[in-house]
Amino acid sequence: MIERRHTRQVAVGSVKIGGGAPIAVQSMTNTDTRDSAATLAQITRLAEAGCEIVRVAIPHADALPGFGEICSASPLPVVADIHFDHRLAIEATRLGAAKLRINPGNIGSIDRVDAVIEAAGEAGIPVRIGVNAGSLAAEYEDRDWPLAEKLFASAVSFCEHIAGRGFEDLVVSAKASSVNATVDSYRLLANALPYPLHIGVTEAGTSLSGTVKSSVGLGILLAEGIGDTLRVSLTADPAEEVTVGWEILAALDIRRRSPELVSCPTCGRCEVDMVPIAQEVERRLRTMRTPVKVAVMGCAVNGPGEARDADVGIASGKGVGLLFRHGQVIRKVPEAEIVEALMAEVEALDRELSQGAK
Amino acid sequence: MIERRHTRQVAVGSVKIGGGAPIAVQSMTNTDTRDSAATLAQITRLAEAGCEIVRVAIPHADALPGFGEICSASPLPVVADIHFDHRLAIEATRLGAAKLRINPGNIGSIDRVDAVIEAAGEAGIPVRIGVNAGSLAAEYEDRDWPLAEKLFASAVSFCEHIAGRGFEDLVVSAKASSVNATVDSYRLLANALPYPLHIGVTEAGTSLSGTVKSSVGLGILLAEGIGDTLRVSLTADPAEEVTVGWEILAALDIRRRSPELVSCPTCGRCEVDMVPIAQEVERRLRTMRTPVKVAVMGCAVNGPGEARDADVGIASGKGVGLLFRHGQVIRKVPEAEIVEALMAEVEALDRELSQGAK
Repeated sequence: MIERRHTRQVAVGSVKIGGGAPIAVQSMTNTDTRDSAATLAQITRLAEAGCEIVRVAIPHADALPGFGEICSASPLPVVADIHFDHRLAIEATRLGAAKLRINPGNIGSIDRVDAVIEAAGEAGIPVRIGVNAGSLAAEYEDRDWPLAEKLFASAVSFCEHIAGRGFEDLVVSAKASSVNATVDSYRLLANALPYPLHIGVTEAGTSLSGTVKSSVGLGILLAEGIGDTLRVSLTADPAEEVTVGWEILAALDIRRRSPELVSCPTCGRCEVDMVPIAQEVERRLRTMRTPVKVAVMGCAVNGPGEARDADVGIASGKGVGLLFRHGQVIRKVPEAEIVEALMAEVEALDRELSQGAK
Repeated sequence: MIERRHTRQVAVGSVKIGGGAPIAVQSMTNTDTRDSAATLAQITRLAEAGCEIVRVAIPHADALPGFGEICSASPLPVVADIHFDHRLAIEATRLGAAKLRINPGNIGSIDRVDAVIEAAGEAGIPVRIGVNAGSLAAEYEDRDWPLAEKLFASAVSFCEHIAGRGFEDLVVSAKASSVNATVDSYRLLANALPYPLHIGVTEAGTSLSGTVKSSVGLGILLAEGIGDTLRVSLTADPAEEVTVGWEILAALDIRRRSPELVSCPTCGRCEVDMVPIAQEVERRLRTMRTPVKVAVMGCAVNGPGEARDADVGIASGKGVGLLFRHGQVIRKVPEAEIVEALMAEVEALDRELSQGAK
């Protein structure tokens, strides 16, 4: 079991961050915020994928009416993301934002930061101080320090200033596109600050490299007990960010949203066509919400061991599969019936568990 | 910089493992080993994807002739993967295997393990002791210990026995499908044994979940300096395993095979169609072998910072992109020309670097 760092807790609408709350999965819309219908449709898709908090950019004043409509109708708490113009952040607190995200490095003067914090305090919502390597304040950017220390120092100086004025409903992030710099900056923050941390690797790249960089970076931090909410950044459909976020939490057995699938990589020993079988099983498991463990294995080497260890498993060989449930062989099924036979057992178990939970 | 654990070194054909050698990327064929032509075609594809050592299963004696043909013609050193029948391992040493992989848990008696080790010693090739949660020897499987300790104890007992007989050209692995158990078992091994470690999460699952589990597990280990060669296990095309393996090494700045691409996740602030631009740039970068850093950014928040920090970068806004090279703005280009303009600069830099390297 991973021991989590103790932090203060904040509430983002109905979702708690820090202080022992489950690690919340976030994403960000990439629709035009002025188009509230398209943005709400994307938020609904994100919620279906498992997103728990959604961030929406307010780039200009003409996005404010749309932002208000989004907050009123969104099924998820909405975080207003603001850069450059602090007045947009103040307006967002009046339009239903459940949290603000500002980057003090580009909001202008400290007076403007103070004005934003005051508005958040009046609205009773938390603020994320989101420092980013791509937009450090010049006073830090120009120092001859390692990037992680610049990110850390910038975040801490703003948090201390804000806490000094009596506002502590803070969440903190300090992201870089370098995994090593990101990990180092969060380790420093975790040691120094009592606030929950929003973790992520910024501008991580396209689906594949972004998934790997986020998994490596967030995996290292989460395994050290660091991180209270996460966002995976991908140059891709934001629903993929949510799926990857959940996969990272599942990989470390921190939180699961769907059953666990163990499947073998196949090799020259495999005598059934495993890849489509595993893919079809994975697709069907995605809609289930019980913590069942399923194994789809291709041969006699590790197959029986893993299939026996799972709640439901199949160990294949020469065109047939041995079906296991809770470690016992139930029956032998021909290759063409493996998916249906396995899923019938999984679905039966899923129904039992769902009813047990009621 | 990550400080790597010091280990003994072994040679797998021309590729060194451990003792400060670069972390080698492996995969395993999933063709029928009897079909040497199909297997060699897959090995060629794997080599093109960046695979450095390839493992081939010998499930039965009828795969031995094919295995010999594969060893003779393979562009990569070939590891023979044997379970159950130790005579196949002995034969493989005579057919050109550059390394053996056995799992003592399923090779039968310790005398048989000794016979395999003796044959490897005569052939002058190393042996991987590859323990796996799905096939632990019964004496460990039945103990009431955490899985990681069972894997560790099993691996150590075989290594000590083999070293006691004077053979130390060993590589060790102890994989589970649980990331936490895998990480714990390798941490124990890294503390206890002087041999290089082959790291991997076994039966990690399909493309997405397997990529995430492998990235989290191997990322944690590599960041701690643990791991001398790696294999990503995916229920997918083995070439994907190689690509993901390289992405994990690149994520931690340990090794790179292609240029680095930093690209933003896009949001409501983005005024150009970023996803296809980033994907096309990524596709074209994949064939390059120089360590160029490229940034493809969608807006004015982090765009100029990241684009300036890269060797070549583009920061977009309202249908145009600002093209940077080594921190300097070169020119403004219309959206439709972003990919070509960016790639022309990257290719020029790639040519300069390639020539400089000669």
